[in-house]
Amino acid sequence: MHIYQSTVSTEAPLWKSEIVCAPSFNETDPMGVVWHGNYFRFFESAREALFEALDYGYKEMNRTGYIWPVVETKIKYRLPWMLEEKASVIATITEYENRLRIKYEIRRERDGKLLTVGETVHMAFDLENKSALFETPEVFRKKLGLG
Amino acid sequence: MHIYQSTVSTEAPLWKSEIVCAPSFNETDPMGVVWHGNYFRFFESAREALFEALDYGYKEMNRTGYIWPVVETKIKYRLPWMLEEKASVIATITEYENRLRIKYEIRRERDGKLLTVGETVHMAFDLENKSALFETPEVFRKKLGLG
Amino acid sequence: MHIYQSTVSTEAPLWKSEIVCAPSFNETDPMGVVWHGNYFRFFESAREALFEALDYGYKEMNRTGYIWPVVETKIKYRLPWMLEEKASVIATITEYENRLRIKYEIRRERDGKLLTVGETVHMAFDLENKSALFETPEVFRKKLGLG
Amino acid sequence: MHIYQSTVSTEAPLWKSEIVCAPSFNETDPMGVVWHGNYFRFFESAREALFEALDYGYKEMNRTGYIWPVVETKIKYRLPWMLEEKASVIATITEYENRLRIKYEIRRERDGKLLTVGETVHMAFDLENKSALFETPEVFRKKLGLG
Repeated sequence: MHIYQSTVSTEAPLWKSEIVCAPSFNETDPMGVVWHGNYFRFFESAREALFEALDYGYKEMNRTGYIWPVVETKIKYRLPWMLEEKASVIATITEYENRLRIKYEIRRERDGKLLTVGETVHMAFDLENKSALFETPEVFRKKLGLG
Repeated sequence: MHIYQSTVSTEAPLWKSEIVCAPSFNETDPMGVVWHGNYFRFFESAREALFEALDYGYKEMNRTGYIWPVVETKIKYRLPWMLEEKASVIATITEYENRLRIKYEIRRERDGKLLTVGETVHMAFDLENKSALFETPEVFRKKLGLG
Repeated sequence: MHIYQSTVSTEAPLWKSEIVCAPSFNETDPMGVVWHGNYFRFFESAREALFEALDYGYKEMNRTGYIWPVVETKIKYRLPWMLEEKASVIATITEYENRLRIKYEIRRERDGKLLTVGETVHMAFDLENKSALFETPEVFRKKLGLG
Repeated sequence: MHIYQSTVSTEAPLWKSEIVCAPSFNETDPMGVVWHGNYFRFFESAREALFEALDYGYKEMNRTGYIWPVVETKIKYRLPWMLEEKASVIATITEYENRLRIKYEIRRERDGKLLTVGETVHMAFDLENKSALFETPEVFRKKLGLG
């Protein structure tokens, strides 16, 4: 992919990132559009931009004793996303209390049309006790600027 | 991935394939498990085995004037799938009348545990008229052994 | 991947792009470093930035009747590239007369160390005559600002 | 990818595997052929089949204290490899004394034509001492059936 611009908002309760990007050749399929499984790469790039701005990248997650595996995901593909077509990938945190839910939208730059909506659901996993958490750990609440 | 065995059942109404396989190094992430977006590669391999047995691979789809893009997908990741861990990826056609719905299960070989469930929903797209179909084209019903 | 910055120089004979970027989770392997086959995605991003600046993206290549498949490639991996580690990926056109040769360097941002060197060799393929060219077509020479 | 058949020869000095396989949709690009960086996935599948037969998979490498990162690679792409086209990917160990060199060939099934040749060079890395080895460790010589 190519990323032209990246903006992040980390003020509670509007944790949100937007990357303006275009698919690379290797992300598109014989129809000349992004292959359906590759959307997760774009979602991941937007999510990583958001977590980097929250000072909660992978290294920091590990340092604080947690990882956040994806436990559920879904996507609706409304319109195809073409090779070289610029679009905004927007990631928004919509739940954090128990599980972490992040919603994604992909909007085409030239006309603002919504191409794709999706979400990933993550659970905190405690590395020391090797167990899933059913409540968000204190450290992540702090990263989110909550009490 | 490595595929050890592949079995397909194409008798209506039990269109189903099962591939016994294990993830490759390049499909796993820093946690040593399959990265969440790579499950779509395994689903695709199982789906392709099924469609090949139905004599309805990509070349044949094109020849008959249709393609079948994914319009929706979802996955629940119950247990992680480790590098070198053998599992069965099972693809089953559960709807074909309007949209094509394929369900997937991934079961670990050593204990039969269900690791993952998912689905992909596809729509027929008529290449000549450049339009989506809301009913399954006759040619696909024939490939399914229906009427 | 995440791209933080992109700069391109298109004045003959210094056709060169540099993207400052960091690997995403999905591009790293169980060792926590970029998987060896994924370097081609980074090279492609840098190459695409360069060709976009030369007004010779895929759509434009097609419009002018040529594509440029990779016919050869090689890489030396000197030092591992870690998840979240910022680095510059630099693509430079070093030959264009017959085949197109692009060299790549990846340099770590924090200390300037050279992590990786590589190259891709491309040949022009004439879409109308369905044949490989052994001399660079006029249109590409113009894009390069040569006569 | 889909793998139809896999055969391995582990008798010294003919360590060699061959997988008969075909590319999946997600491995092919807008030209309908395998994207140049995805060949490393096919090489990896053939290499993993070989190492599994030598009882030297990743878990076993780790257990014995070594990993084998790729330090160099190259490929010549002679003919394109099409979606759904069956081919043999053959991996052969050609050096093991200092560095491990594995050569790869991809041959189309329908006419035996050589599509691609490549190689990967690996070095043993001692996990305990965190250092590269310049001679093959005893344990790997044993796996190869040498003294």
